[in-house]
Amino acid sequence: MRMVDIILKKRRGLELSSEEIDFFVQGYTHDKIPDYQAAAFLMAAFFQGFSPRETGDLTISMARSGDQADLSGIPGIKVDKHSTGGVGDKVTLIVGPLVAAAGVPVAKMSGRGLGHTGGTIDKLESIPGFKVTMDNQSFLEQVRNLKLAVVAQTGQLAPADKKLYALRDVTATVESIPLIAASVMSKKIAAGADAIVLDVKVGSGAFMKNPSDAFSLARTMVEIGHRLGRQTVALITDMDQPLGFAIGNALEVKEAIETLRDNGPADLKEICICLGCEMLGLAGIEKDQLAARRKLEDLLKSGAALNKLKEFVQAQGGNPQVVDHFDLLPQASDIHQVTALTDGYVREIQSEQVGLAAMWLGAGRATKESVIDLAVGVVLRKKVGDFVNKGEVIAELHVNENKEITKVADMLRQAYVLQREPVEAKDILLGKVTKEDL
Amino acid sequence: MRMVDIILKKRRGLELSSEEIDFFVQGYTHDKIPDYQAAAFLMAAFFQGFSPRETGDLTISMARSGDQADLSGIPGIKVDKHSTGGVGDKVTLIVGPLVAAAGVPVAKMSGRGLGHTGGTIDKLESIPGFKVTMDNQSFLEQVRNLKLAVVAQTGQLAPADKKLYALRDVTATVESIPLIAASVMSKKIAAGADAIVLDVKVGSGAFMKNPSDAFSLARTMVEIGHRLGRQTVALITDMDQPLGFAIGNALEVKEAIETLRDNGPADLKEICICLGCEMLGLAGIEKDQLAARRKLEDLLKSGAALNKLKEFVQAQGGNPQVVDHFDLLPQASDIHQVTALTDGYVREIQSEQVGLAAMWLGAGRATKESVIDLAVGVVLRKKVGDFVNKGEVIAELHVNENKEITKVADMLRQAYVLQREPVEAKDILLGKVTKEDL
Repeated sequence: MRMVDIILKKRRGLELSSEEIDFFVQGYTHDKIPDYQAAAFLMAAFFQGFSPRETGDLTISMARSGDQADLSGIPGIKVDKHSTGGVGDKVTLIVGPLVAAAGVPVAKMSGRGLGHTGGTIDKLESIPGFKVTMDNQSFLEQVRNLKLAVVAQTGQLAPADKKLYALRDVTATVESIPLIAASVMSKKIAAGADAIVLDVKVGSGAFMKNPSDAFSLARTMVEIGHRLGRQTVALITDMDQPLGFAIGNALEVKEAIETLRDNGPADLKEICICLGCEMLGLAGIEKDQLAARRKLEDLLKSGAALNKLKEFVQAQGGNPQVVDHFDLLPQASDIHQVTALTDGYVREIQSEQVGLAAMWLGAGRATKESVIDLAVGVVLRKKVGDFVNKGEVIAELHVNENKEITKVADMLRQAYVLQREPVEAKDILLGKVTKEDL
Repeated sequence: MRMVDIILKKRRGLELSSEEIDFFVQGYTHDKIPDYQAAAFLMAAFFQGFSPRETGDLTISMARSGDQADLSGIPGIKVDKHSTGGVGDKVTLIVGPLVAAAGVPVAKMSGRGLGHTGGTIDKLESIPGFKVTMDNQSFLEQVRNLKLAVVAQTGQLAPADKKLYALRDVTATVESIPLIAASVMSKKIAAGADAIVLDVKVGSGAFMKNPSDAFSLARTMVEIGHRLGRQTVALITDMDQPLGFAIGNALEVKEAIETLRDNGPADLKEICICLGCEMLGLAGIEKDQLAARRKLEDLLKSGAALNKLKEFVQAQGGNPQVVDHFDLLPQASDIHQVTALTDGYVREIQSEQVGLAAMWLGAGRATKESVIDLAVGVVLRKKVGDFVNKGEVIAELHVNENKEITKVADMLRQAYVLQREPVEAKDILLGKVTKEDL
């Protein structure tokens, strides 16, 4: 088998065999196929696409390119959750303890932030003492006992995806729905869950800018899941503004704790309940959506979900007292207020701009090597639909000796899109894709 | 300027600026742009194409990537000839002396053979003593005095093309008409001619397998020529069988000499006359095609063309006596006859197969590093339209201690496509593209 023939076949729009796809994936992962052939192949794939069968094969080959978690020792249906990446997305910190409290085993591998998006692992590290690595035995043990463990995913989880993604990033081949779908799903498959709930973000701050692309990506991922024997459901959710108010690691942890105390922002709570209901359904704990919702609401109200967070933090070496004492979390030295320059109703808050503003303050990484400041970030004071008076505070910057406050404040002002007319309320949940929709 | 943005722009089908194209070409030539970005760009270009303006810019950027010949010191309109590559194509050896004898200055840089196609430089080297390199001053001097000089093109002639072609070869991006056209024309522009006659081959043994692609390539090249201020004409010629009878270096030199003696194969003579007429026309020596044809026929009959070959061989250090004494050329030790296994009329002789057979005997290079045997090759005994009796000799193999005679004989038998019905005669000249056809 020669890679040049595989490129040619894809360029001509022919369907590749499973063996050809595996030859490419394993060959590229193990440096037997050079970058330039992979780049030409990815561009040909961008134009010609992949059939559902090819996309499934690509996913399984990528999943098998490195370590594969074996969760079979944990009783119950292990359900994973994945977000395609948003700004202010602290959902895992909330929904993890919430569904674990309901009995769903969650054995999660998460990533770090890059560019305008944050990562669960960075957020967890803002809790003093919290450890994001542990040996496999302890990880499984913790899930068995507590129903919840979250560790940092290593380079050995789907290394093919890691290498391909880096290449796509510099060859203008990122925006291919089958490639994006295979990238996400390969990591979920390698992480070993039995069922997967996907949160596909759509909007200015998301990877998918319009609903049609988001639904297409969701359908592709749900189809991959079912082809590979994993029950998969995708929710399409709005990202025309950041989720909740807080953007920045420790700031988001606080907001997550407030949400688990049933005192969080409405949009954030709603998305957590929606995703939680799907997880309860796939886990076979509560198939009826209304009953599932009631159960999750009860767990928030009773403090059971918050208690699960405490146990989880303690189990991973963190100080559980942060839950009641926010001053134990890293604190920024200064808070600068950003005020509006004009009046109007907030139509949109460009999430990418907000994410980049937080990155400039030190909350995110410009490159993989950047060192982040866990304390800093942005707290929004106005959200979509709110009326803003000229001079009113729209956001707060939590900063540590940053010299570019003016620039960041301007970025935030630009992120707010105001209009004269009142803004109609929009649901955060835009749609759902299940096996039945394929 | 970032290469990833240029790839994205092309991927989206937008027209690139001259600066963007030059950024790519010079950056890639000087190793500032990595192979993988060039590969992704070439595949995007394969799908999205290039506008005529972009193709012209690509050509000029590639021509300027290395040395550029300055022929302005030679009086008259310098006319170059280029073939897209055939099997048994010894046209330059004939048409060079022929048009030079008519007064057209020909300052030619030629290449070596690779794979199933031969190269003029290898063929000339089968003449004892012939030198294919000389300093620039001597080259110009020889063209001024003799109207003809042929040297090997160096890596410094359009190095961008050399590097891009090598990459296209391993990334399945060869078959792009704008890229092929720019590759050919960049070398012609860098070689400095005022006018260019192109021989675009079409058929099983050619780069272009069907007339529609061949005409499209011809139009693209003629358009580039005119955009860049070079009078350009393209002839579309048949390659459904090798040109003439001989394939192999010294064997082709003999056939070229016979043709200059007006004793050559009809197809070979006709193509030389057709190309020669265009060269006389572009050089302003004889615009009337019928008069040009008569002039060239006269030069063949009078021995003036053959004499020009002798002068040319002598000027470049070769032994001019080869013209009258073929035994001075390298001779193979054995001749094996290949006989037909069935009866029939020859419908086609698959040139690529014949070229590969000659390569196996040692006449051509499997890789750039292969050492060739100038004496060996194939001499066809039957051509398209001929009737073959079972057991009759269809071709001769000229070999030097080759162990794979049986295999090569089988390749030749397979190259002959026979049929029961008589085969209609087909013109070798299939069409012509000039500025007026754009």
